[in-house]
Amino acid sequence: MTLHIGLIGAGRMGATLGHHLAYSVEMATFTAIADPQEEAARTLAAKCQVPDIYTDYNQMLAREDIDAVAVVTPTNTHVEVIKAAAAAGKHIFTEKPLALSVADCDEAIAAVEAAGVKMMVGFMRRFDPSYVMAKQKIDEGAIGEPVMFKAVGRDPWRTSLEFAKRENSGGLIADMGIHDFDLARWLMGSEVSRVSSEGGCLVFPELAEVGDIDNAVVNLRFENGSIGNVDVSRNAIYGYDIRTEIIGSEGSLMIGSLQKTQLLVLTKNNVAHDSISGFGDRFGEAFAMEMRAFVEALEEQRDTAVTAEDARAATAIAVAATRSLDEGRTVYLSEVS
Amino acid sequence: MTLHIGLIGAGRMGATLGHHLAYSVEMATFTAIADPQEEAARTLAAKCQVPDIYTDYNQMLAREDIDAVAVVTPTNTHVEVIKAAAAAGKHIFTEKPLALSVADCDEAIAAVEAAGVKMMVGFMRRFDPSYVMAKQKIDEGAIGEPVMFKAVGRDPWRTSLEFAKRENSGGLIADMGIHDFDLARWLMGSEVSRVSSEGGCLVFPELAEVGDIDNAVVNLRFENGSIGNVDVSRNAIYGYDIRTEIIGSEGSLMIGSLQKTQLLVLTKNNVAHDSISGFGDRFGEAFAMEMRAFVEALEEQRDTAVTAEDARAATAIAVAATRSLDEGRTVYLSEVS
Amino acid sequence: MTLHIGLIGAGRMGATLGHHLAYSVEMATFTAIADPQEEAARTLAAKCQVPDIYTDYNQMLAREDIDAVAVVTPTNTHVEVIKAAAAAGKHIFTEKPLALSVADCDEAIAAVEAAGVKMMVGFMRRFDPSYVMAKQKIDEGAIGEPVMFKAVGRDPWRTSLEFAKRENSGGLIADMGIHDFDLARWLMGSEVSRVSSEGGCLVFPELAEVGDIDNAVVNLRFENGSIGNVDVSRNAIYGYDIRTEIIGSEGSLMIGSLQKTQLLVLTKNNVAHDSISGFGDRFGEAFAMEMRAFVEALEEQRDTAVTAEDARAATAIAVAATRSLDEGRTVYLSEVS
Amino acid sequence: MTLHIGLIGAGRMGATLGHHLAYSVEMATFTAIADPQEEAARTLAAKCQVPDIYTDYNQMLAREDIDAVAVVTPTNTHVEVIKAAAAAGKHIFTEKPLALSVADCDEAIAAVEAAGVKMMVGFMRRFDPSYVMAKQKIDEGAIGEPVMFKAVGRDPWRTSLEFAKRENSGGLIADMGIHDFDLARWLMGSEVSRVSSEGGCLVFPELAEVGDIDNAVVNLRFENGSIGNVDVSRNAIYGYDIRTEIIGSEGSLMIGSLQKTQLLVLTKNNVAHDSISGFGDRFGEAFAMEMRAFVEALEEQRDTAVTAEDARAATAIAVAATRSLDEGRTVYLSEVS
Repeated sequence: MTLHIGLIGAGRMGATLGHHLAYSVEMATFTAIADPQEEAARTLAAKCQVPDIYTDYNQMLAREDIDAVAVVTPTNTHVEVIKAAAAAGKHIFTEKPLALSVADCDEAIAAVEAAGVKMMVGFMRRFDPSYVMAKQKIDEGAIGEPVMFKAVGRDPWRTSLEFAKRENSGGLIADMGIHDFDLARWLMGSEVSRVSSEGGCLVFPELAEVGDIDNAVVNLRFENGSIGNVDVSRNAIYGYDIRTEIIGSEGSLMIGSLQKTQLLVLTKNNVAHDSISGFGDRFGEAFAMEMRAFVEALEEQRDTAVTAEDARAATAIAVAATRSLDEGRTVYLSEVS
Repeated sequence: MTLHIGLIGAGRMGATLGHHLAYSVEMATFTAIADPQEEAARTLAAKCQVPDIYTDYNQMLAREDIDAVAVVTPTNTHVEVIKAAAAAGKHIFTEKPLALSVADCDEAIAAVEAAGVKMMVGFMRRFDPSYVMAKQKIDEGAIGEPVMFKAVGRDPWRTSLEFAKRENSGGLIADMGIHDFDLARWLMGSEVSRVSSEGGCLVFPELAEVGDIDNAVVNLRFENGSIGNVDVSRNAIYGYDIRTEIIGSEGSLMIGSLQKTQLLVLTKNNVAHDSISGFGDRFGEAFAMEMRAFVEALEEQRDTAVTAEDARAATAIAVAATRSLDEGRTVYLSEVS
Repeated sequence: MTLHIGLIGAGRMGATLGHHLAYSVEMATFTAIADPQEEAARTLAAKCQVPDIYTDYNQMLAREDIDAVAVVTPTNTHVEVIKAAAAAGKHIFTEKPLALSVADCDEAIAAVEAAGVKMMVGFMRRFDPSYVMAKQKIDEGAIGEPVMFKAVGRDPWRTSLEFAKRENSGGLIADMGIHDFDLARWLMGSEVSRVSSEGGCLVFPELAEVGDIDNAVVNLRFENGSIGNVDVSRNAIYGYDIRTEIIGSEGSLMIGSLQKTQLLVLTKNNVAHDSISGFGDRFGEAFAMEMRAFVEALEEQRDTAVTAEDARAATAIAVAATRSLDEGRTVYLSEVS
Repeated sequence: MTLHIGLIGAGRMGATLGHHLAYSVEMATFTAIADPQEEAARTLAAKCQVPDIYTDYNQMLAREDIDAVAVVTPTNTHVEVIKAAAAAGKHIFTEKPLALSVADCDEAIAAVEAAGVKMMVGFMRRFDPSYVMAKQKIDEGAIGEPVMFKAVGRDPWRTSLEFAKRENSGGLIADMGIHDFDLARWLMGSEVSRVSSEGGCLVFPELAEVGDIDNAVVNLRFENGSIGNVDVSRNAIYGYDIRTEIIGSEGSLMIGSLQKTQLLVLTKNNVAHDSISGFGDRFGEAFAMEMRAFVEALEEQRDTAVTAEDARAATAIAVAATRSLDEGRTVYLSEVS
């Protein structure tokens, strides 16, 4: 039996996931696309050879032949869409972050649990081959006990001012750090107990006008005593820069690269290579693997690899780290969740 | 109008190209698969959602609705299949090498020209993003005049003894060097005028029993006076190792990497990473780009990016280099073509 | 006129600096060595072809022909030795840290100022060619405005328990972070205004018994609003790991490497290289350059490149970061200096 | 008993070795310098704190208190100087190449043997830590049986036209390849039996006017059947580029790097580092180790690490490879030695 999947949201990220649903996940049928912007839905449907489009996702949810939906709408609509999808009995994949507040996460989780459907959240790095292998090395004991988590998460451009607003993106720390907070929990095998942040609007003054910053560092303390730090930036103009280190008692792991193609250009006293232009360059394969993992979990009727509880925990760290920035003090996770 | 394409040959390489025809080339329809081994054809057809299979490729060639075929049969059958396909009026993509002898190349070329169809040969490296960018840099003058070509082409395993025979693979130099000989002409912008080789059966004595070697170095002299060297090996047990350098009057280019994932494992006094396991790891994207390039050339009714003449020239270098090895002397290309 | 220099302290670090005084600084004469352990002084004097040794440094300070001294005694004796040397009218080079408390720094500074002698402090990284070039790039504007400072400072071994005590080393953050705090001020061009730390004794439980930790992360906020983070660790068992990043508004700099020799060892599916075993491997040349810079500043009667005020500022950051760890809160530099 | 050593030749290379004799080899005394250009001798003597200078090296050789000499004169004077030094009973270190012809090598060897003195030749790469470790790995069996030798030897500049003449430098292949030919024998553990070269004057037409070329590739065949290739170039304008690979039956080794400092400069879509500017950058430490090895062998009265026979063998390969270039054919070593 082939699963039938619908996509809600045909924007840039929706197009990425839709493409993988169409061309990388043979065991599912990509059946329908819903987006209030009919043209976007139509264009993506043509590219992905999807037969049906809707401008109202509720119409799509009403179809009995659709087993699951992928939710790629703006974050502030996630809870509403998830509640509707759960009520319609659809399994749910939702883009990260699940929600910007812990309360919203809880509301989504309650709806999913009440409906008895599965929900997976799009922390695609967990499906990237390098991170998969890192996790495996840790589990095998290759580095002993992990004691420090270091993460770099930097974008080569400023986000839009509208998106930068706290109510839309959660602000810099939530928007960029959420992946690192998820990796931190997953790779360190411990929950974060408190955080302390520093940050500022140092390069793009217009961000300050909408209440956002462009650079931040966040110290982490885990429940088992281990520690960490995450830095996020909007001005890595040299390229999309995602690197992670796990320092262990018997060794360390480093994940990440700054190079896209394998070409080195050597000119007078200078050796240079290109860089990674964005998440598509770096995590294209991970998005495909993520979609496959979602479909496989549904087919095999087992839990998804990334759960709603994972999403809630990452959101809680982001909320605490942002409050730490606002209040200039160490914030305990117990204060926010 | 969508092109309809058939695949002849459902072996390992056929499966690779078939997958790309099915999932990476939206503007063509992958219509049929022919392979004497019905089970192989059936399995691949299922994976690629291809409706029709044949055990006799002539039946497939008889279909009027098929515009083009991809030939992925054993090299020693290429000429026969190409002649049949050309006679049936099909455009042709053929895996490399076109043929093991210059005479066979000429026979294939004559058939294609007589039929007025297009033929492209599978030198997929020309479509790899790193090589594409290298070619562009050279054309832009970034390294001045190219004066030396250096290539490493090493496999991490021994080929089968049956395949190793000269009549099947052309021997080590032809089998592994053909890609480098093609790159040499393409990147240096000059024809090779003479070659001199050294080689030996140094690691796998069983190869000697079927007349093959496992390591060789081939010096190149180009018509414009520039020079080069290609090394090929079957015992790069550390991983699939394809690297190319172009030394120019004003700079140089280096293409290639030994690393697959982005994971560094750091243990006591040791920093290690994995390696590339085979051509799928390294050139997966290039195979997809190659198929797209073939289809686009047909759609736009222009010449293919790699022509039959390119294939003939690379084969001639391989034949000369092998003769140089056999005779322990410098061999001029004029002796073999 | 050649400067005559005496060395106070013939331990491991004294031997390193002594060797450079003897063999890398042609424009000074290395005249005498003082160490209460006569055998250590004698051995080093033989290696460095130094004529005179003393077990009491005051005797050495009494010599009129000695122009300057290098102080490489235990940190908790620095102030006493510096006061004596200043009173004797000698110019002073002192190993880092100048002192473990801001008050001690002030006492040393007062003595030096009263005597009208020059004092330089051993932040040798400022003389390492890679850091020198980084500073130059920043000053040239190559990366625009520096906005984030990131530093890794990790040792591949546990220090001795005696040294680990706060009264001897200042604790992990002071001992290892002091170089990074100095680099932070130097490269960012701004003073640190507040810090927040997390740390723990996670690998070597015996360190906890003497009141120390083995891993820490320290967030920095600079007076100009820019931010940073320093991590320090005792369990980088893969090798001595010193890396620094400066993220700027128009580009970034990364300094550091994990590789000592230029040998890559490639075995089955594995590519590996060695690592850097300690500060001698990494900063050998920097120590020589540092000694030359000290002598040149004296000869040319100008200010030394690293001043006592620099040393005081770095100590203040270390003290604040350690207090942040102890108290679990953000600490302002104004609280400690 | 301390050895007393004299230096013959105070040019650029003499200054390099002299500096190491003075400051890196504690167990010998650098006693005298001879150079027909008195000013050069005087300047170097001042830098190295050497008491005596001579304009006629025979006067220096007449001194009984001098045990050994380092010969750093133009290559075409080596035989004459070596004969005089041997006749005077001095042990001899001579810069590479020993001589440009096999006959000259034989003449020097005969003189040394007749006098019963020791002679070492300056193949300093054998003392570079990376090459030392590579040799050790091979001897330990880490890569199984070495089967292919690959070497890159490229200079970032054109040599002087006077030096480029065959009678002065031996031509490009001899001048630059001699180090690689020595490494080939040393690392592969087998003698070269035949060679074939391609080369040309492709970048600096003025070199052709004095009979030289600027780029060459040389295939090697070893007596044990293994193979190799060496490329040499004068137009590596990106930097001094010395890299070596040993491909073995069970693994491979790669030696070499293109980076000098540890600074990475990241600007828009570009990641760049500097390169190595010349042999001083790359082999400074090796020159010091080489001088120490020479002195230690004399002190311990054992054979030097690199013998006159090693020098003769490398010269023979260079002569054969140059003849191969001239005659466009494979040349056997038996033809030239």
